[in-house]
Amino acid sequence: MSVDLERYLGDRRRAVDEALDRYLPPESAYPPSIHEAMRYSVFAGGKRLRPILVIAGAEAVGGQMRDVMPTACGFELIHTYSLIHDDLPAMDDDDYRRGRPTSHKVFGEAIAILAGDALLTHALGLVAANFALGKAPLDAFPRVLTEIAEAAGTPGMIGGQVVDIQSAGGAVSADTLEYIHTRKTGALIRAALRVGAILAAAPEPVLASLTAYGERIGLAFQIVDDILDVEGSLETLGKTAGSDRRKDKITYPGYHGLAASKARAQTLTREAEAALAGLGPAGEPLAALADFVLNRTR
Amino acid sequence: MSVDLERYLGDRRRAVDEALDRYLPPESAYPPSIHEAMRYSVFAGGKRLRPILVIAGAEAVGGQMRDVMPTACGFELIHTYSLIHDDLPAMDDDDYRRGRPTSHKVFGEAIAILAGDALLTHALGLVAANFALGKAPLDAFPRVLTEIAEAAGTPGMIGGQVVDIQSAGGAVSADTLEYIHTRKTGALIRAALRVGAILAAAPEPVLASLTAYGERIGLAFQIVDDILDVEGSLETLGKTAGSDRRKDKITYPGYHGLAASKARAQTLTREAEAALAGLGPAGEPLAALADFVLNRTR
Repeated sequence: MSVDLERYLGDRRRAVDEALDRYLPPESAYPPSIHEAMRYSVFAGGKRLRPILVIAGAEAVGGQMRDVMPTACGFELIHTYSLIHDDLPAMDDDDYRRGRPTSHKVFGEAIAILAGDALLTHALGLVAANFALGKAPLDAFPRVLTEIAEAAGTPGMIGGQVVDIQSAGGAVSADTLEYIHTRKTGALIRAALRVGAILAAAPEPVLASLTAYGERIGLAFQIVDDILDVEGSLETLGKTAGSDRRKDKITYPGYHGLAASKARAQTLTREAEAALAGLGPAGEPLAALADFVLNRTR
Repeated sequence: MSVDLERYLGDRRRAVDEALDRYLPPESAYPPSIHEAMRYSVFAGGKRLRPILVIAGAEAVGGQMRDVMPTACGFELIHTYSLIHDDLPAMDDDDYRRGRPTSHKVFGEAIAILAGDALLTHALGLVAANFALGKAPLDAFPRVLTEIAEAAGTPGMIGGQVVDIQSAGGAVSADTLEYIHTRKTGALIRAALRVGAILAAAPEPVLASLTAYGERIGLAFQIVDDILDVEGSLETLGKTAGSDRRKDKITYPGYHGLAASKARAQTLTREAEAALAGLGPAGEPLAALADFVLNRTR
């Protein structure tokens, strides 16, 4: 493989972390508790997969990382807000996330709810800041905003979370399981790639390839998540292994078995890589990213 | 007064209600529970003040209602989301709003949290839809989005709510009370006027007048809200009167007394009307709206 994946990810993760630090209000900004809570969850050791996919989507069509960085960081804020709200007592009621107490355990429920709201709201400001940079075509704006609203809204992430919560403990069909997985995690991953490419003025056929790629790694990502939940431990995973089963959450291995789940994740990864065929060398980092999604241990 | 206020408000309220019905996903859209919850709170008999202010801001500079309607509705969704989250047990713990059980009483806490999240997210989609109409100048986009992100975020509405919650039951300075009032309600009202005007390509001096007007009616609105909470009844108000005092919430009359509060609201209304001087006849509906904000009984 011609891409040094560790270096590729490390470079981008560092750049994203620096940008997030610049784009978020300082902890001392009034009122401090909310800004502390926002930063506590954003800087909790995330993989930065979604912002890296925004960057990769742009770079695959000749765009520059710096020209999409505010929107890339916006995706991380949206992802983080969804984790804070998912962990709330009224939702999944999780006490730990990435090895640290969850937001509501540290700051209380009220501030945790508001910190989630604030991160989603701040993400909008970052999309605005991206267009104020003057590098992205202005007429891409309604498209980018529509992509984000759909991927993060009830046709996407929120819809997936609703069905996930309401399916817990009950009998669920294979279709419902697929619905939850493609919406809850897949939609935002797919949108990250598309938005990066749209900001860099991607031609339609390339956008279609990136979409096919994104849909497959999005689903693979969630299946691997489920597999890790069965096989992982608190040490490598940072959350209690088996927590999905404990909460009677429906999972891919729970429905299809562990072997079939691993086979499906592998097939999806191969399909994702095949979708990149038309991109030539520009697709190589994305192929490496697909391998990373498949083989990650946390 | 040359404006028939009842007709002015009625026409716009009806148009906003119709548009909200068109713009929101149907209750039957999968998963239905979240779309039922979104519609339950949006169609709970709100005054539609914020969308009307977006429309009034545009009309004051020669814009058309239909050209700003998606964004106007977006403001109502943001307002509604904030009410749903404020009412949650972890926040103000209110069982009634506008005479009906609050969202979490009807749908449970998880769906109420997600319905709030979904309304905020859907508001983004409506801003995108507004620019897709092709009537607003595309370069207004980063400005409009920045206005919304700041007014609804920690420098505005969320910051006000944080300080409001954290001040309950304790000693609060006049400055803190003013901070809460200008942020929690004032910021979104101010932004509604500004965004309407920006979408209609308002010249800078007019925008400055509308901003001065918006800041004053925003604060007047919240002071009148506090007065109504002291003087109103469940029948006219739709929520339990005295609920602020019961929760040890700091209010304007609680701090400055009822007479001084009424005087301040009147002064702010006069100042708001004075700020419209340069607008000529185009400012008349806004002057009538300021009277409405001052004299409303619910």
